[in-house]
Amino acid sequence: MMRLFNLNVMKKKFISPLLRFYVMIAVCVIASLSSLAQQYQPDWKSLDSREMPEWYQRDKFGIFIHWGVYAVPAWAPPVLKPGEKKDRSFSEWYWKHLHDSVDYFVKHHEEFYGDKIKYQDFAGNFKAENFDPGFWAELFRRSGARYVVLTSKHHDGFALWPSRFSRNWNSVDIGPHRNICKELSAAVTAAGLKMGFYYSLYEWFHPLMWKDSTRYVNDYMLPQLKELVEDLRPSLLFADGEWDFSSKLWKSESFLAWLYNNSAVRDSIVVNDRWGSDCRARHGGYYSTEFSSNLSDYKAHSRLSLWEECRGIGKSFGYNAIENLEDYQTSDSLITNLIEIVSHGGNFLLNVGPTADGRIPVIMQQRLQDIGDWLKVNGEAIFGTVIWDKDKQQLNRKHNPYTYYTRKGKDLYALCTNWPEGKIIIHGIRKFKKVRLLGAGQLEVKATLKNDQLTIVPPVISPNTEPCKWAWVFKIEDVI
Amino acid sequence: MMRLFNLNVMKKKFISPLLRFYVMIAVCVIASLSSLAQQYQPDWKSLDSREMPEWYQRDKFGIFIHWGVYAVPAWAPPVLKPGEKKDRSFSEWYWKHLHDSVDYFVKHHEEFYGDKIKYQDFAGNFKAENFDPGFWAELFRRSGARYVVLTSKHHDGFALWPSRFSRNWNSVDIGPHRNICKELSAAVTAAGLKMGFYYSLYEWFHPLMWKDSTRYVNDYMLPQLKELVEDLRPSLLFADGEWDFSSKLWKSESFLAWLYNNSAVRDSIVVNDRWGSDCRARHGGYYSTEFSSNLSDYKAHSRLSLWEECRGIGKSFGYNAIENLEDYQTSDSLITNLIEIVSHGGNFLLNVGPTADGRIPVIMQQRLQDIGDWLKVNGEAIFGTVIWDKDKQQLNRKHNPYTYYTRKGKDLYALCTNWPEGKIIIHGIRKFKKVRLLGAGQLEVKATLKNDQLTIVPPVISPNTEPCKWAWVFKIEDVI
Amino acid sequence: MMRLFNLNVMKKKFISPLLRFYVMIAVCVIASLSSLAQQYQPDWKSLDSREMPEWYQRDKFGIFIHWGVYAVPAWAPPVLKPGEKKDRSFSEWYWKHLHDSVDYFVKHHEEFYGDKIKYQDFAGNFKAENFDPGFWAELFRRSGARYVVLTSKHHDGFALWPSRFSRNWNSVDIGPHRNICKELSAAVTAAGLKMGFYYSLYEWFHPLMWKDSTRYVNDYMLPQLKELVEDLRPSLLFADGEWDFSSKLWKSESFLAWLYNNSAVRDSIVVNDRWGSDCRARHGGYYSTEFSSNLSDYKAHSRLSLWEECRGIGKSFGYNAIENLEDYQTSDSLITNLIEIVSHGGNFLLNVGPTADGRIPVIMQQRLQDIGDWLKVNGEAIFGTVIWDKDKQQLNRKHNPYTYYTRKGKDLYALCTNWPEGKIIIHGIRKFKKVRLLGAGQLEVKATLKNDQLTIVPPVISPNTEPCKWAWVFKIEDVI
Amino acid sequence: MMRLFNLNVMKKKFISPLLRFYVMIAVCVIASLSSLAQQYQPDWKSLDSREMPEWYQRDKFGIFIHWGVYAVPAWAPPVLKPGEKKDRSFSEWYWKHLHDSVDYFVKHHEEFYGDKIKYQDFAGNFKAENFDPGFWAELFRRSGARYVVLTSKHHDGFALWPSRFSRNWNSVDIGPHRNICKELSAAVTAAGLKMGFYYSLYEWFHPLMWKDSTRYVNDYMLPQLKELVEDLRPSLLFADGEWDFSSKLWKSESFLAWLYNNSAVRDSIVVNDRWGSDCRARHGGYYSTEFSSNLSDYKAHSRLSLWEECRGIGKSFGYNAIENLEDYQTSDSLITNLIEIVSHGGNFLLNVGPTADGRIPVIMQQRLQDIGDWLKVNGEAIFGTVIWDKDKQQLNRKHNPYTYYTRKGKDLYALCTNWPEGKIIIHGIRKFKKVRLLGAGQLEVKATLKNDQLTIVPPVISPNTEPCKWAWVFKIEDVI
Repeated sequence: MMRLFNLNVMKKKFISPLLRFYVMIAVCVIASLSSLAQQYQPDWKSLDSREMPEWYQRDKFGIFIHWGVYAVPAWAPPVLKPGEKKDRSFSEWYWKHLHDSVDYFVKHHEEFYGDKIKYQDFAGNFKAENFDPGFWAELFRRSGARYVVLTSKHHDGFALWPSRFSRNWNSVDIGPHRNICKELSAAVTAAGLKMGFYYSLYEWFHPLMWKDSTRYVNDYMLPQLKELVEDLRPSLLFADGEWDFSSKLWKSESFLAWLYNNSAVRDSIVVNDRWGSDCRARHGGYYSTEFSSNLSDYKAHSRLSLWEECRGIGKSFGYNAIENLEDYQTSDSLITNLIEIVSHGGNFLLNVGPTADGRIPVIMQQRLQDIGDWLKVNGEAIFGTVIWDKDKQQLNRKHNPYTYYTRKGKDLYALCTNWPEGKIIIHGIRKFKKVRLLGAGQLEVKATLKNDQLTIVPPVISPNTEPCKWAWVFKIEDVI
Repeated sequence: MMRLFNLNVMKKKFISPLLRFYVMIAVCVIASLSSLAQQYQPDWKSLDSREMPEWYQRDKFGIFIHWGVYAVPAWAPPVLKPGEKKDRSFSEWYWKHLHDSVDYFVKHHEEFYGDKIKYQDFAGNFKAENFDPGFWAELFRRSGARYVVLTSKHHDGFALWPSRFSRNWNSVDIGPHRNICKELSAAVTAAGLKMGFYYSLYEWFHPLMWKDSTRYVNDYMLPQLKELVEDLRPSLLFADGEWDFSSKLWKSESFLAWLYNNSAVRDSIVVNDRWGSDCRARHGGYYSTEFSSNLSDYKAHSRLSLWEECRGIGKSFGYNAIENLEDYQTSDSLITNLIEIVSHGGNFLLNVGPTADGRIPVIMQQRLQDIGDWLKVNGEAIFGTVIWDKDKQQLNRKHNPYTYYTRKGKDLYALCTNWPEGKIIIHGIRKFKKVRLLGAGQLEVKATLKNDQLTIVPPVISPNTEPCKWAWVFKIEDVI
Repeated sequence: MMRLFNLNVMKKKFISPLLRFYVMIAVCVIASLSSLAQQYQPDWKSLDSREMPEWYQRDKFGIFIHWGVYAVPAWAPPVLKPGEKKDRSFSEWYWKHLHDSVDYFVKHHEEFYGDKIKYQDFAGNFKAENFDPGFWAELFRRSGARYVVLTSKHHDGFALWPSRFSRNWNSVDIGPHRNICKELSAAVTAAGLKMGFYYSLYEWFHPLMWKDSTRYVNDYMLPQLKELVEDLRPSLLFADGEWDFSSKLWKSESFLAWLYNNSAVRDSIVVNDRWGSDCRARHGGYYSTEFSSNLSDYKAHSRLSLWEECRGIGKSFGYNAIENLEDYQTSDSLITNLIEIVSHGGNFLLNVGPTADGRIPVIMQQRLQDIGDWLKVNGEAIFGTVIWDKDKQQLNRKHNPYTYYTRKGKDLYALCTNWPEGKIIIHGIRKFKKVRLLGAGQLEVKATLKNDQLTIVPPVISPNTEPCKWAWVFKIEDVI
Repeated sequence: MMRLFNLNVMKKKFISPLLRFYVMIAVCVIASLSSLAQQYQPDWKSLDSREMPEWYQRDKFGIFIHWGVYAVPAWAPPVLKPGEKKDRSFSEWYWKHLHDSVDYFVKHHEEFYGDKIKYQDFAGNFKAENFDPGFWAELFRRSGARYVVLTSKHHDGFALWPSRFSRNWNSVDIGPHRNICKELSAAVTAAGLKMGFYYSLYEWFHPLMWKDSTRYVNDYMLPQLKELVEDLRPSLLFADGEWDFSSKLWKSESFLAWLYNNSAVRDSIVVNDRWGSDCRARHGGYYSTEFSSNLSDYKAHSRLSLWEECRGIGKSFGYNAIENLEDYQTSDSLITNLIEIVSHGGNFLLNVGPTADGRIPVIMQQRLQDIGDWLKVNGEAIFGTVIWDKDKQQLNRKHNPYTYYTRKGKDLYALCTNWPEGKIIIHGIRKFKKVRLLGAGQLEVKATLKNDQLTIVPPVISPNTEPCKWAWVFKIEDVI
């Protein structure tokens, strides 16, 4: 149809068949030459060979933000079915669950909004009137985070930038009337952090999504994703919603080839692995997990060298107004999460869910500040570190499950999520120079080495002299 | 771009250049053959040769409906600038006038809604909760109208059917959550009337509209318009918003060729003339005028054989809640409009502007009922009639400006918008059989012929015996 | 209480004790004298002896306005029970019907508002933002009405003035934030009309109403009613909601004695008869009927000399947004109502129900203007007239049910709601001078007298020469 | 009334008439005697002689709740004038500040709501749809609080129970449509806590307040306050808004006489001192301070034996949605507040400001839980304690400003808001038995006495063995 149409155009222009043939040849030659200049081919083998920019592995801790129209109902039940027990709830899936007649959602919606209001009608009530990007950026900076990832578009298709592919269903046209992606990006960058965007490949209810997936991908999704990259120039791209189609259908390979070769961010961009039903833990950038219950054995599942775990401070990514204190993780638990992830070589992307008017709930501010306070003392054991010899780590953790390890250059860090009474014994050390408790440099820490076994005797600290709360780090310098 | 892309596809499939050349030849041949089978060519000469389906010329009186998100603010000032004097106001242009900072609109919006609410936020408040398509259809039927034309999409781009090209900006996704086009079409058709749709080619704020007009037309406008035709199968298509681009740019010729040759409604569809800046009164179906101040001389301006005047009952197409009685035309005036238009060979498309909740203001119901009452008596002088000999008409109207003429077969109708005191003299009649007053068949009407001049003496009627109000029709049978 | 207070004031001004004593004596004397001067005693015998100010009997036609929080839902079903057939619906009783679980109301409320919204929550949405008292007053003036009666407080207790007895439940505190009574009174008076107020004695849900009726009356109702009279100085007071208690319990006698003797409006005030379960048609001012089905025999039911019928233009007093044309009376019918009522010695109080934003629906404007047009021609047969000899009237109406009679001085008016074909015969005329058709003074009207029987032959009129529509009046001058 | 009722009950039980007569006589006698037995006269001398029920002095820690229509705007600027520096903001004064044209409030209101919305219009949006009194009560119980005080009515006059004196301006009639006072009272009592009510004597905008204060007090305020007491039977009454009138004008003495002698709660009720401009720190129950900057010297200002300091967790009593983490006190600071207040003999009433939909912000839940955790370990040093010898306390605090003292029976508690490094020296101890660290009973605490000077050497604790956070308590047993 398209071809016919185009030929008709040529026909009208009275171009002779032979001339057209020559034009075609010329086009082929040019195309080949230009592909020589490309570093990456649109196939996973080539794409997977790209090294992710080093900042990502170094920076370890980022802030995830789920924000959109779902912040208006801001509601999810603790579980989706009676009797279920979950650490995860889904306020950002409100529309889908309502559409699928999930009992709790239907009942709540009926009671609070009635029949005549549907999800899309909430858009006008997502006003972001108290959204202060500078305040957010400063809050994130003080949390110690080094990068920020905002949902530029979730599965509901609502874009937080004025996407020309999402007319009147984006935050400039309706609701906030602000370019949230751009405003936040500017503030975050100015605060010295990197800015990334989450982008859902699929949409629950896009008219083309299921009926004509090829056109969905070609005419809508890919152009929009490129628009996002070109307009906002992110440092990180967190794909999602990839599970129903293969990467072939999503044309992820050619998109990534474009991204790595031709886009404005080709040198600095980091991506995750959600590029098709065939991709997770196999292809793309970093292995991306969420709300994981077992953080320790991720490696078994992934061929990728990088890994990032994301989760909410509460149980939901999007703001869930009915969550109470018991639904929020403690600072203690979050810092343990961070330590556990980083000691296993991962990054931690901790999610906040702002309110519809643009505030970050104070309990989330509290958690971020606590992490920031801890990182001020112990950040050197997190940022820029790598996994310490995996076998040794396993051996040692068997003896002391509350101590984790990271390594940077010649130094080894033992991160204790419980204060060690008695001694810490670390196997597999042949030599060391000195042991210090981070944040308490003045304190003498006794340590002795015997049979490749380092014994550390923690110093006496009181509530008055403790360098920090929640977890404590011993730095063992010049380890061999 | 497209061509390259398609060639690349072929290239990937390893089709040899020579084979591709043959394929192209074949395609050309097939295309030529298929175009032979087509009755109409995509050029104005061919398209303009099509005769409009006869129902249109016969049915004369239709109802126009402007309904959309603008029914929420439902507001327009009497004039756009101080001092201006206008018979026309523009509630359906609320968004555009606000956007263009037209003083009155800005002030009103500020006062009633404030800064944080924009036009698109109104969509959720357009609920149509009292919309009863059966009631509407019956009301239109009783008004004597024979067809109905609904704004399927106005310049704001909001579609009243679930257009897959207007995701979340249509009446099924947001606001009413009903397929208004379809529901009304079903009811109107069931009531024995024809259903048509207004469709705005351009949109004020579609992201592609001005930046990439070609893609706007190809990827958005034309597919959507075809979707409308295919999904709703209208009897009439009222294009609008065509003025900024030529019909070439709009690809109107090829669209109409498709419509006339290939669409499901190819035999019955009627269209107007708003298909490009080069079209009005020149190309397409009927000449379409609106809120005309001088109805009599339209012909001078048009090469087209058909004509339709549209106007509101009030001063605005969209509902304007602040209009008072003085802003509404009287039934007297509307019936005069109808007579004037039809006697000049035109159709009258009278507009109603429903409220956001789906009611037709009772004053409009009153006007429609009055017209219906009048047509019950006098419809035969309207429907199926044609212009009476133009020269004679002019001659006679010079003598009596309150009498209009229509002709059907051998009968001539003299339509008097004032009751004729004394006598009616009609020049140019050589023979006649009898004169009757419509609705008062029993009354003797004296009429004498002398020197091709027919003199009618109106009968005595009292308020008790008058056949109707507002205008009276003398039927002169078997006129030569 | 007041007097004591004033003495305290004197005390402060250092008036000597002795002087104060004399002043007190003087005050007592004056008070006694003035009470002697009181014309009316607080008993029905005395009160009923008061002649109502003559303007009332003269002015005949007034506008009733039901406006309040009920204009927000603006809804009533055509009937209250399935199968019922009614000319009356009750949008102003929305709250009560909802409270009493009347099926239709409960269902509608559930569907449109849900459980969590109750009637009182509507108050904030009654904004009156388009209320233009000058426009209203001018509209009423042009309708020919001579007085206006506004619901200062309906059974829901919501006051349209800032009553200090109805804190935060009045139109200045919540919703419109305007003193509607005062603004309208000023505009109506400036337009030369008289202003009156409807006031409901009872309230459905006042906390004291049923539990402690005496305190309700003493501490709330009477002080508020006096406040209304003192603050707004109405020319007419339309009591209502009196039916559950006797006039003794309402203390209506003493209130009226105060009103007639002491209030600022004692000379000009007109009241109706709704002052207790024992009062209608028996005590008070004029007999007040509503939505009467038989206007002719009211007198049989009333001991009072004055009578007023009130009804809506539509079926409801408060605005009912779902009413369609068929629910509104025609101008024809309303003018017949007016004629019928006035010819039986009554006044006609025609109700309009404004919208929550302060507009008078245009269909109501149309009806008012039509009546105004008719009164411009025929007002002299309405205003200042009295009943024509009752027996003669009955006799004549038996012969011609479409002709009504009024009398003013020596002139008799025959008001024909149908145009009389043939002749009009009027019995009981002994002498007359001349007959004229109002609005067509130039036309000769033939009339002959024989055996006390006057025969009028209506003149020939055409749609072009008819003086008016809907009803025609013959004036018979100097009748004996 | 009650007595008569009981006699009727007797009648039903077939008690003989004569017996009933004797019973009545007896009742009368008892009644007379009991009225003779009335302990308190309506004068401050007598009233001030009443001992407050002992539970109050014992229970020390309560929860204050400011909730009402002001939770809808939920807004206050950090300061009221530019340049000001404040620990206190006033979201619950939104209406008053708006009314008084305080710049920040006017600007905010304009921007967020516009001209046409006033404070009272917010009432319909105060829905409390997520209010769960059982959850609240449990949260308060877990915080260690022993009593709860809810704003039954703040200065805006909005009642949280269905007061018959505040028709349509209370939480049952409009907004939540729930009896918040009653629901919470039931839940709090069921959780084993005492329930009290805050009540504002004055109202900013009651129509009688300034114009006829006597009637305001007699006909409105006093009856309403008695209604509150009779209907809700609180254990504590926190008067406020008393400052503009004397206690004579408020009739506070006679009210309190009634409360102490005749009310249903006469034995258990506790009141504060805000009963007139002449009362604070002088008359009534306990001295009530708020947001005090210097907690230590309260006694100098008060003649009353009891004292209670109230303050918010954030800077405002009513919820202020724009407060961020820096505006909330830390748990550390709040526990220090509690210790400081109790060690000076006071009670601490800590305020929470729920949201309009009925949630307690999670950051407040966090603070309450932290206090609860601390009290679980250290509650015995708080509840039931009294001031330790004032002179000794001053002397010791001079030496160690971070240690506070309370006493219970023979035991002395030293509460350290900083962990004491080195030693704690306490002057003025002549004898003691043993010193223990609360929550760490197993740890040996060395203590030596010399020259009436006790020297305590804190034990070694680590983050792993510390009994609690924020503050630590040494119990010195059997002190002389």
